[in-house]
Amino acid sequence: MNTSEFRRRGKEMVDYVANYMEGIEGRQVYPDVEPGYLRPLIPDSAPQEPDTFEDIINDIEKIIMPGVTHWHSPYFFAYFPTASSYPAMLADMLCGAIGCIGFSWAASPACTELETVMMDWLGKMLELPEAFLTEKAGEGGGVIQGSASEATLVALLAARTKAIHRLQAASPELTQAAIMEKLVAYSSDQVVATLGTTTCCSFDNLLEVGPICNKEDMWLHVDAAYAGSAFICPEFRHLLNGVEFADSFNFNPHKWLLVNFDCSAMWVKKRSDLTGAFRLDPTYLKHSHQDSGKLKPAFNIFLTDGPFHVLFQHWQIPLGRRFRSLKMWFVFRMYGVKGLQAYIRKHVQLSHEFESLVLQDPRFEICAEVTLGLVCFRLKGSNKVNEALLQRINSAKKIHLVPCHLRDKFVLRFAICSRTVESAHVQRAWEHIKELAADVLRAEKE
Amino acid sequence: MNTSEFRRRGKEMVDYVANYMEGIEGRQVYPDVEPGYLRPLIPDSAPQEPDTFEDIINDIEKIIMPGVTHWHSPYFFAYFPTASSYPAMLADMLCGAIGCIGFSWAASPACTELETVMMDWLGKMLELPEAFLTEKAGEGGGVIQGSASEATLVALLAARTKAIHRLQAASPELTQAAIMEKLVAYSSDQVVATLGTTTCCSFDNLLEVGPICNKEDMWLHVDAAYAGSAFICPEFRHLLNGVEFADSFNFNPHKWLLVNFDCSAMWVKKRSDLTGAFRLDPTYLKHSHQDSGKLKPAFNIFLTDGPFHVLFQHWQIPLGRRFRSLKMWFVFRMYGVKGLQAYIRKHVQLSHEFESLVLQDPRFEICAEVTLGLVCFRLKGSNKVNEALLQRINSAKKIHLVPCHLRDKFVLRFAICSRTVESAHVQRAWEHIKELAADVLRAEKE
Repeated sequence: MNTSEFRRRGKEMVDYVANYMEGIEGRQVYPDVEPGYLRPLIPDSAPQEPDTFEDIINDIEKIIMPGVTHWHSPYFFAYFPTASSYPAMLADMLCGAIGCIGFSWAASPACTELETVMMDWLGKMLELPEAFLTEKAGEGGGVIQGSASEATLVALLAARTKAIHRLQAASPELTQAAIMEKLVAYSSDQVVATLGTTTCCSFDNLLEVGPICNKEDMWLHVDAAYAGSAFICPEFRHLLNGVEFADSFNFNPHKWLLVNFDCSAMWVKKRSDLTGAFRLDPTYLKHSHQDSGKLKPAFNIFLTDGPFHVLFQHWQIPLGRRFRSLKMWFVFRMYGVKGLQAYIRKHVQLSHEFESLVLQDPRFEICAEVTLGLVCFRLKGSNKVNEALLQRINSAKKIHLVPCHLRDKFVLRFAICSRTVESAHVQRAWEHIKELAADVLRAEKE
Repeated sequence: MNTSEFRRRGKEMVDYVANYMEGIEGRQVYPDVEPGYLRPLIPDSAPQEPDTFEDIINDIEKIIMPGVTHWHSPYFFAYFPTASSYPAMLADMLCGAIGCIGFSWAASPACTELETVMMDWLGKMLELPEAFLTEKAGEGGGVIQGSASEATLVALLAARTKAIHRLQAASPELTQAAIMEKLVAYSSDQVVATLGTTTCCSFDNLLEVGPICNKEDMWLHVDAAYAGSAFICPEFRHLLNGVEFADSFNFNPHKWLLVNFDCSAMWVKKRSDLTGAFRLDPTYLKHSHQDSGKLKPAFNIFLTDGPFHVLFQHWQIPLGRRFRSLKMWFVFRMYGVKGLQAYIRKHVQLSHEFESLVLQDPRFEICAEVTLGLVCFRLKGSNKVNEALLQRINSAKKIHLVPCHLRDKFVLRFAICSRTVESAHVQRAWEHIKELAADVLRAEKE
């Protein structure tokens, strides 16, 4: 495909995407296919000669779309939201064209530098303590990771390295393995310290946990994967109080801040804790500005693992990272902070609207405090009847929900997810749930 | 931004991308900026009210492009190639629109299923042993990872878990830490068993290493991050001989197979070795087909770490994965296997062309066998004179190279990278290098 064909096909694809988004409400949110549906629909090996673009675009509707769960349908209330916005899509097109692999400053200076500044912008939106920002020339800073698990793993490995160094300094006779056997990681019953758990969006109290960690010299990592986006609104910022005690903090703008996947924001108070745990310097990554003092660590964090540092030399090229900060830049600028806040508030308001509908029906109960965009609810009664209700909901495929367990109770999660969900969708979803609940209760009596 | 504005802006962005690609040869391959250049050019916090799209698109040329290292310029010969093709960009647009997070079959069946089939297509292009394919209903299969390091880490952790289980079964009194202290990972002086090293693209002999690993019950992971793409050509396939002894194998189509970053292909002979090491089953990820027997493990591999499995419940939502197999599907179909082979062959031919130019000049020497697209060369003489030559090359910024060390010698790496590089670019690059070499040698004599 040459450039002039790309101009044509690219514009056709823009229209395809726009049509998909415009018409998504009309598509069944959850697909009808059975496992293994796709393989018989396509050849069993790649073609020797090229197919045409027309063939491929036709196959999207024939082969792909029938097997897609439409996460951006306004009738999708499952899991948690995954971000989708036009500004982020435009930025991703640019990111793909530049196609740099920003594993060091020299590999593409704009990639490292924009990321550092965007992480400061975002940190300020959240009113993070200055210690986490780069601009103040302190020891902290932010970095984009691929996912909250990557961020948490990085934090854990950094914490472990730091603890091992401290203990080895105190007792040089101890081997690394002997120390590792004694290390303990504390967590709550949902997970690290978490603001907004996956199951029910509950919150740990950092003001209680934080001072203890600091006093005992324990690394405190705070994960607010979903909830973190809400902290850009002053009325929700109090949920982040105590972050000043944390060593590291992360949340996912790719969930609820309109920055398409992947973009997990992570801040640390002391960059050297990370760079100390994940350093490497092969010749082909050195560049003339490296030791200039003008350059802050580029946070080229990739995953290595303590017991295997005999392989350290190997963890090298994969430093690959896309120019993800472009998405933040486009989204923050095209929405503005006020636009982003309005988006969060709309979702929270819709979840409260759903909550009040549930509360008006005496057959149902709310199972956890509704703080942000998630409502945990169930029919008063057995787990079995609730499992039957969920089964009916997901078989009908008009809306899509997933369950969770809260203290042995089977609970339905209603998460406000889509960028385009409105009150009318929530109302329709509730009417539908009520009808199916009546069917379930009737069937139970029979 | 509403959908109709996206239609307009999206098409403008397609043109911007096309213009960028068409004009990339005219841009200086390596930027002039100094560290810290970007921060003063933009506000120190996000705007409260939205900026316009015009503002942003203007800022791309003003703020971003001056700091970009143009990896897709035909004068970029640094590191290794990173893939860029129009079909992959079109697929990425679609991937962004669908925006599903494919962490389980139910989360978007097409995402899991297309990935499985595409990994089979690719495995067949490489003539991988059938044990690595999914279609034969065996125990093996392929999965897309984000990077070769992720693939290698996953392989190492799976190998470790397997070794620990085996040793604990034999000696139940041993603790996990005591076992871990005794575990050994062997590697060559470049890195695991590697086909096509980063420094000089050398190859380990799997036919020697493999049988030993199998006999000693050692996990053999083979990494061919860069070189793997070449194995789709019959004349290079012999470099992969011995892969039949491996437990796991990976390479990066996002380097040299025209599938934009990220797309690291990994195959294992026994899926259960991975799923055993990385399993989790929270309620909200369960779905009705899960235990149907029709569904093969979806390879929801995310990174957890042995010593911390107290936190196992936490490694959950981040299972996030984009619909990356769309890029493979578009690229394989729009190029066809023959088109992809032609692309690889052109790059290899260009590297041999450069090699023969170097060999014709008695001042220079070739430092490693040229097998694929990388030429390691240097001026006969001291490291200092070669460092001076590289310094001149990268200061002139007409072309971009990075160095490596081979047995204490400072060596220049000339990697054929860009999709659009032609013989004329290679010839011009060599003329330029020769001129600068003359300057360096003259300066040395003075």
